Amino acid sequence: MSHNTFGHLFRVTTFGESHGVAIGCVVDGCPPQLALTVEEIQRDLDRRRPGQSRFTTQRQEADQVKILSGVMETASGQVTTGAPIALLIENTDQRSKDYSEIKDKFRPGHADFTYEAKYGLRDYRGGGRSSARETATRVAAGAIARKIVPGVTVRGALVQMGPHRIDREKWDWNEIARNPFFCPDKDKAAFFESYLDGIRKSGSSIGAVIEVVAEGVPAGLGAPIYAKLDGDLAAALMSINAVKGVEIGAGFGAAELSGEDNADEMRSSSSNMGNNGPVFLSNHAGGILGGISTGQPVVARFAVKPTSSILSPRKTVDRNGADTDIFTKGRHDPCVGIRAVPVGEAMVACVLADHFLRHRGQVGPR
Amino acid sequence: MSHNTFGHLFRVTTFGESHGVAIGCVVDGCPPQLALTVEEIQRDLDRRRPGQSRFTTQRQEADQVKILSGVMETASGQVTTGAPIALLIENTDQRSKDYSEIKDKFRPGHADFTYEAKYGLRDYRGGGRSSARETATRVAAGAIARKIVPGVTVRGALVQMGPHRIDREKWDWNEIARNPFFCPDKDKAAFFESYLDGIRKSGSSIGAVIEVVAEGVPAGLGAPIYAKLDGDLAAALMSINAVKGVEIGAGFGAAELSGEDNADEMRSSSSNMGNNGPVFLSNHAGGILGGISTGQPVVARFAVKPTSSILSPRKTVDRNGADTDIFTKGRHDPCVGIRAVPVGEAMVACVLADHFLRHRGQVGPR
Amino acid sequence: MSHNTFGHLFRVTTFGESHGVAIGCVVDGCPPQLALTVEEIQRDLDRRRPGQSRFTTQRQEADQVKILSGVMETASGQVTTGAPIALLIENTDQRSKDYSEIKDKFRPGHADFTYEAKYGLRDYRGGGRSSARETATRVAAGAIARKIVPGVTVRGALVQMGPHRIDREKWDWNEIARNPFFCPDKDKAAFFESYLDGIRKSGSSIGAVIEVVAEGVPAGLGAPIYAKLDGDLAAALMSINAVKGVEIGAGFGAAELSGEDNADEMRSSSSNMGNNGPVFLSNHAGGILGGISTGQPVVARFAVKPTSSILSPRKTVDRNGADTDIFTKGRHDPCVGIRAVPVGEAMVACVLADHFLRHRGQVGPR
Amino acid sequence: MSHNTFGHLFRVTTFGESHGVAIGCVVDGCPPQLALTVEEIQRDLDRRRPGQSRFTTQRQEADQVKILSGVMETASGQVTTGAPIALLIENTDQRSKDYSEIKDKFRPGHADFTYEAKYGLRDYRGGGRSSARETATRVAAGAIARKIVPGVTVRGALVQMGPHRIDREKWDWNEIARNPFFCPDKDKAAFFESYLDGIRKSGSSIGAVIEVVAEGVPAGLGAPIYAKLDGDLAAALMSINAVKGVEIGAGFGAAELSGEDNADEMRSSSSNMGNNGPVFLSNHAGGILGGISTGQPVVARFAVKPTSSILSPRKTVDRNGADTDIFTKGRHDPCVGIRAVPVGEAMVACVLADHFLRHRGQVGPR
Repeated sequence: MSHNTFGHLFRVTTFGESHGVAIGCVVDGCPPQLALTVEEIQRDLDRRRPGQSRFTTQRQEADQVKILSGVMETASGQVTTGAPIALLIENTDQRSKDYSEIKDKFRPGHADFTYEAKYGLRDYRGGGRSSARETATRVAAGAIARKIVPGVTVRGALVQMGPHRIDREKWDWNEIARNPFFCPDKDKAAFFESYLDGIRKSGSSIGAVIEVVAEGVPAGLGAPIYAKLDGDLAAALMSINAVKGVEIGAGFGAAELSGEDNADEMRSSSSNMGNNGPVFLSNHAGGILGGISTGQPVVARFAVKPTSSILSPRKTVDRNGADTDIFTKGRHDPCVGIRAVPVGEAMVACVLADHFLRHRGQVGPR
Repeated sequence: MSHNTFGHLFRVTTFGESHGVAIGCVVDGCPPQLALTVEEIQRDLDRRRPGQSRFTTQRQEADQVKILSGVMETASGQVTTGAPIALLIENTDQRSKDYSEIKDKFRPGHADFTYEAKYGLRDYRGGGRSSARETATRVAAGAIARKIVPGVTVRGALVQMGPHRIDREKWDWNEIARNPFFCPDKDKAAFFESYLDGIRKSGSSIGAVIEVVAEGVPAGLGAPIYAKLDGDLAAALMSINAVKGVEIGAGFGAAELSGEDNADEMRSSSSNMGNNGPVFLSNHAGGILGGISTGQPVVARFAVKPTSSILSPRKTVDRNGADTDIFTKGRHDPCVGIRAVPVGEAMVACVLADHFLRHRGQVGPR
Repeated sequence: MSHNTFGHLFRVTTFGESHGVAIGCVVDGCPPQLALTVEEIQRDLDRRRPGQSRFTTQRQEADQVKILSGVMETASGQVTTGAPIALLIENTDQRSKDYSEIKDKFRPGHADFTYEAKYGLRDYRGGGRSSARETATRVAAGAIARKIVPGVTVRGALVQMGPHRIDREKWDWNEIARNPFFCPDKDKAAFFESYLDGIRKSGSSIGAVIEVVAEGVPAGLGAPIYAKLDGDLAAALMSINAVKGVEIGAGFGAAELSGEDNADEMRSSSSNMGNNGPVFLSNHAGGILGGISTGQPVVARFAVKPTSSILSPRKTVDRNGADTDIFTKGRHDPCVGIRAVPVGEAMVACVLADHFLRHRGQVGPR
Repeated sequence: MSHNTFGHLFRVTTFGESHGVAIGCVVDGCPPQLALTVEEIQRDLDRRRPGQSRFTTQRQEADQVKILSGVMETASGQVTTGAPIALLIENTDQRSKDYSEIKDKFRPGHADFTYEAKYGLRDYRGGGRSSARETATRVAAGAIARKIVPGVTVRGALVQMGPHRIDREKWDWNEIARNPFFCPDKDKAAFFESYLDGIRKSGSSIGAVIEVVAEGVPAGLGAPIYAKLDGDLAAALMSINAVKGVEIGAGFGAAELSGEDNADEMRSSSSNMGNNGPVFLSNHAGGILGGISTGQPVVARFAVKPTSSILSPRKTVDRNGADTDIFTKGRHDPCVGIRAVPVGEAMVACVLADHFLRHRGQVGPR
């Protein structure tokens, strides 16, 4: 069971609410003797941190992470021991505010009604457990996960905002760090600046599509049928707040293709195949066939809906079932998809780490 | 861990290869005292059975299921006992054939290379474990799952074939059983007949999109963060052979929407809210918010790639890494998406059954 | 969750009732390319098979096992493929009999009342799912498990029957196969023959203690805290029907020892320590410290209660709660502990296989 | 998988090392709307806390627990929300000391060698993760677990120290809190005082047996075959540091009994059977038959070996494989079994809570 845990051999359990004392996670199953410093984790957290531009929530959180367990100093620096690694991030900006507006009303598009329907009560302070704040702990866990599969690089990019898609011909990974959108298309990033400003100023919000690419994934990761690599990626990405769709490789586009166009042909690699497998002449598969990695880049995309916290009044009901209107005040992200980029990377890194360990266990060294 | 098992309280473990002795599954965790006959399971299996029209593989399989355990006769008929229910389907048409073409060559778009990369060998007879034949056992398990959540109806439909989408205004569930495509749009079904005939005769294949709708799902099913109802649906649907994308409700379309357009507003229901929750004025959420069901219909779609078994020669490599061409002979489905409809229904039914039991355990009767 | 499944990377799911059509299991997670024949599995099953002496139930079951999936013929013989291995044993001797005596009465010491309390009904035919017949499938799975840890030998012995313990000085593994009790002490075996004959003729029954020894277990198997090797062994052995106690190494005897007497001292091995670790000067630990194997033999013991199916009338209640007496007719084992020996071996083999794979995944090759 | 997690619907994940910054746990799956205060958890922790008498380690730890998440204030006090409850205990007395003696030598009877064999390194400071300090977090989790099964009381007692067993005729639960041994036999407690003083002063240690009794367990908890209530109890109790044996009810004594003596006869209860089931005339079963609770008290015992930290020099090897002697200085428990009493209670409470939720999910309200 895994309500607040994901993974099998590499397992992450998260805890904490938006406006509680602290959030954190326990990373269990990390192999021993991996070099790990708090700075490496902080670096990833800083990429997700709110309040870094006018395009994300103005909540100010330092998101300073502490390692509580699972590492020790050795002659060659701080390393993992094989024991569970607990990470803690204290909440500092839970802004004391008036909750009367949302305490008894269900915000449309949020999990207010469903948490109440499930549990009979809900933590209304900042969304409680359903807040995207929880994703900070995923990014922290992902920083550890990145170290597990030798040679893997996991990078994400915003490839669509509203109806506007990037020009794939202009894809430049170096651009990602140069704009506040993690956008790999320089021109589109410039456009998004004014586009999103308009949305922000009008108090509205907009959806986005994120693409995560993992390069250097060895062939053979994944497992048959119900532990497919793409099945686990789908669950992991769909578990991110506000995600409504996931696709691998050609994705929904594959529905429009013929077998000739879709199936990726192969040619022998110049080097020996044993190491690298064949050269694929295309990658509609997104690096996964039959649930198992092909050795090509793993490519996953996910759709993030617009945040439902907007500044215009909305029809809803209160806890007593009476009709009312609700008016969301306070800080919000005009495009929550932006900060989902490092979260998506983290989830992909965690899934790959887990499958790397599982594959090593199940099939082992030859 | 769950290589060949899915679910938690309602758990299904499947086994068997395309051309082996038999396929089957073990359904564990089914509550006791549910009426269950072999005919009910057979009825669902017959909907998926190959060879029923010229648009699916001509393999002839009776797909006769046997119940090996977990039920007993009582005064009120045959019921489940709470013990694991084992189901067995013998393979009858494993057509003795010449495997020399595919034994040492990797079919593009199939799991041939990846199984070999993972395991160092593969069962090349009809695809072995990676064959869609395994999905018959899912349909059998799904027939049991359908009985668990009181009042739930799970139905699927083919909503797109190649670039051709159905007209949603013409959606009629009664049409599903009247054409060989599970298509709810009568006119489009007529079109698909000639369209797919052309593809079939040319030895090509085409992708499709399937939509599954579950009505009568009570509010409150699902669980936070890593056991979200949509996360589990995404994993379950992505685990179906050839699926490359999954979306819930507005799905990828949500990326193009503003917060005003996307968030589903609420109004009080005329009856008491306790039972049914509010009336939602739209269903972009696809019946799920924060990973938990809203009480609206749960709507999931998945994209099925075109089968890679086509009649034109394709570039590939052999097991020794040498370049070669491969030419797939034999039976195939011109649109594997068609038979994925009952499989998709079964997966959704299984996920709902599992979450119903988990919710009952976790939150329980008030 | 694991009602009818055990293990994580090496997972066994069993099904079937005593008097149903068939019993069987699905072994998932077995590494590929292991040589495996049906004869190897049958050999282990034959050691557990009933009706082989007058000291076990006279039920006649051929216990012929079939492999339904997960293996294929290769140039070097039949091997595992990495796919789930389904094993099936048809029930042949479910003797048509009159169940009226036990249908509505709860047999003391059996699971009759508890199954009814849990499920609201029970399969009264031969004990249904709670029958020891299920253990045949464990022995079959164990035969596969034995092949996974290189160099491991798992052997069991009956070391106590009623109050009579074997003389450990006379322990000879070769004796195990020479008497119907799996007893390693030749003299005690001769005594047991007349002792158990007396019990059998009087229609009574007696308890026993079984010891399982696994030699060749590499140091390092097991995992911290809640996945300790001894924790998993305890659960696995306690899951065998009629087992009421489990101990490792000195076991309950350790409660009477001082720290000086109990802790196993170490000396360097003549060979290099890297391979074999230190030489331990005693083995009170039973080969496990901190939940992790030391490299010494793993020693586990379990207590089996006397069967509650005896020929004297017993006080009980019926399904309506009325007082009554019950008189068990029919076949029974005067000492069910005897046939628990191969079952205990199988469970230990399965736990070791699982931990071997988990260790390889978690820590991997250096 | 569950290296540092136990339970399924009620799940506990623990973290932290003996001499690290903090220890803690995440309790996931706790039902919502349970009243829970930090004082209730602290009360249980205080019973286990070291340094309360001269018979336990003199390490001074306040063991002040903080609740980081999963609760909220309501009109009727602080309650659980259904979100994961994170508990944190800061380490305060990690006494800066000289580790040179144990850093490179393996202490006999400890997990030093095995952790090193598994992970290639170990946290030698106070035993790191293998220290009994981890059990404080179990007691904290157990305090929550106690609230889940309505009407259940879980109490433990020390029933044997070295070869000295209590007189069961003198059992008085009220005595438990009146002596530093959790001993229910007043006279034996007085004896233990001088007995253990002798052992303590000589720098030696001694083993013990603990009995845990759960009253008010409803009939029907547990699950077939591999999720038996006794199987889970065995794993849970064996996972406590230094435990070498577990038994239920008559336990190993059952091996010496005949079927007539062992099987618990039944008589109708004066009240209606529906609620309470039959009256059992004895409880050799320890409240569990076929892995499912009978409604009688659940009785489990476990054997705790003497601590291996003693003041006389012991033969061992160092990390280089060279022979050496080791001399354990510092604080230790002369009988670690004493503090295992509240830990055993906590584990039993957790297993019962988990099975209560699972039963409710699986079988549900009728």
